[in-house]
Amino acid sequence: MVSSDTAPPAPAGTDTGPDAAPIVVLVRPQLAENVGTAARAMMNCALPELRLVAPREDWLSEKAVAAASGAESVLRRAHAYDSTEAALADCHRVYATTARRRDLIKPLTTPRHGAAAMRAGLAAGQRVAVLFGPERTGLANDDVALADTIVEVPLNPAHSSLNLAQAVLLVGYEWFQAGVDRPPVELVTNGAEPADRAMLMTFFRHLEGELDACGFLRHPEKRPGMVRNLRALFQRAELTVPEVRTLHGVVKELRWGRRPDRPRRIEGGVPADWAADESPAPDSTPEERG
Amino acid sequence: MVSSDTAPPAPAGTDTGPDAAPIVVLVRPQLAENVGTAARAMMNCALPELRLVAPREDWLSEKAVAAASGAESVLRRAHAYDSTEAALADCHRVYATTARRRDLIKPLTTPRHGAAAMRAGLAAGQRVAVLFGPERTGLANDDVALADTIVEVPLNPAHSSLNLAQAVLLVGYEWFQAGVDRPPVELVTNGAEPADRAMLMTFFRHLEGELDACGFLRHPEKRPGMVRNLRALFQRAELTVPEVRTLHGVVKELRWGRRPDRPRRIEGGVPADWAADESPAPDSTPEERG
Repeated sequence: MVSSDTAPPAPAGTDTGPDAAPIVVLVRPQLAENVGTAARAMMNCALPELRLVAPREDWLSEKAVAAASGAESVLRRAHAYDSTEAALADCHRVYATTARRRDLIKPLTTPRHGAAAMRAGLAAGQRVAVLFGPERTGLANDDVALADTIVEVPLNPAHSSLNLAQAVLLVGYEWFQAGVDRPPVELVTNGAEPADRAMLMTFFRHLEGELDACGFLRHPEKRPGMVRNLRALFQRAELTVPEVRTLHGVVKELRWGRRPDRPRRIEGGVPADWAADESPAPDSTPEERG
Repeated sequence: MVSSDTAPPAPAGTDTGPDAAPIVVLVRPQLAENVGTAARAMMNCALPELRLVAPREDWLSEKAVAAASGAESVLRRAHAYDSTEAALADCHRVYATTARRRDLIKPLTTPRHGAAAMRAGLAAGQRVAVLFGPERTGLANDDVALADTIVEVPLNPAHSSLNLAQAVLLVGYEWFQAGVDRPPVELVTNGAEPADRAMLMTFFRHLEGELDACGFLRHPEKRPGMVRNLRALFQRAELTVPEVRTLHGVVKELRWGRRPDRPRRIEGGVPADWAADESPAPDSTPEERG
């Protein structure tokens, strides 16, 4: 077992300052493969600094690197220590992850609430570390005693045990989320412009004109309500410009298809450009389209 | 691979109603082991229902059951389907997890915001499903097209790929958290009573009396500030009854230790019961304690 209490500290800027992240400390990890999968989870969550307390296997073995799946850099930068106390010597705030309650009087938090506190500590220039115990047993009480706060993941009480990488992932995920500001829902339009009101109204008039003509809206007393409902349906879809063009084509084709009386141009003020590449060309005859 | 579109539906009550959970749909999973680890993550998050679309391997193989690590019941209750469409036939709201943006115009959400929407849908009696793609490739566009909403996990953009079980874990974790109400921080006292104000004040008087006597508080102009700071320090610790008893013992032993002039009882109105089993008995002489 290589040990390197005398290893140089991590490069400046990664462990303190505004871009700092919590340090992951794996205490007595048993399998190199699990150190690798933990490193992968760290990389997923932009956690660069790994410390190992008395690891049983070589964390740069082929197995570990393969399990890290692209996060080899995290393993290469890792340092090993003889004791948990040595690994934590320069840290100001320490969190211990546990799956079971201990006979210790400590504040208990969740990964989510803990993440907010970690961000605050890091922003104040503190070095923050999170302890994870060995695969089989979890942290020893003496390791938990070195921490300020216990982190417990709220999970199914009947089955709350996580493997090492999953525990690292959930803590890291919450830390990462605490720095993310994403809207509840956004529409991915891949660059397509949303249709403006005028374009929508032109489509509605096209649609309703054809529905009048084909007899779908033949009951005058029902017509206003039906029109409102149809318009609402299409408005909820938050249509894009290409989609409105496509719908124009859909309506025209449904109405006229290969009918011999198909008009060369449809009525209702539909702009000439509504049928772009995305929809069947409005002026093409059925014959032209094959 | 066995397929069972005609399999009976899951037991009533697990997939709709107030206790309902989202259904996990693994589309064309490649390795049975990964189906097993996904089942374990489901069990962690109290997600009981698994559906498999054209799995390549037997999801009840020895490997799968071993990987499930106690979540075999999830595998046993799983049903397989020939197509994603068949697996989703009875579902009302469908989420597709993807790591990369698609050329599809769909609402995009996060696991966290999606979880709140899933809870709302489930509470309204809807059957909610979440699609996860094959290990190597993720969901095909045709599968994503069957979903209402895309779920993207905000992670390190330089390294956002998750393995199947981790993707299931993060979505399930957020769903579980949405039903959990935990305080930001709570003190785990393992049944120990918090000390009341009277007990604290008695301890403060004991401590300050000894500090006066030993000369630590000998500067009258500094005394009030020092007393305030000492009291604040101990109040922040949210002391329990046994801890205050221990502190009484600590103060007395520090002050008197094995000194021959050690008093039989200390002054300052300290109640007779402050030294319980948890602390050195205040009336014991050094000799008695060995």
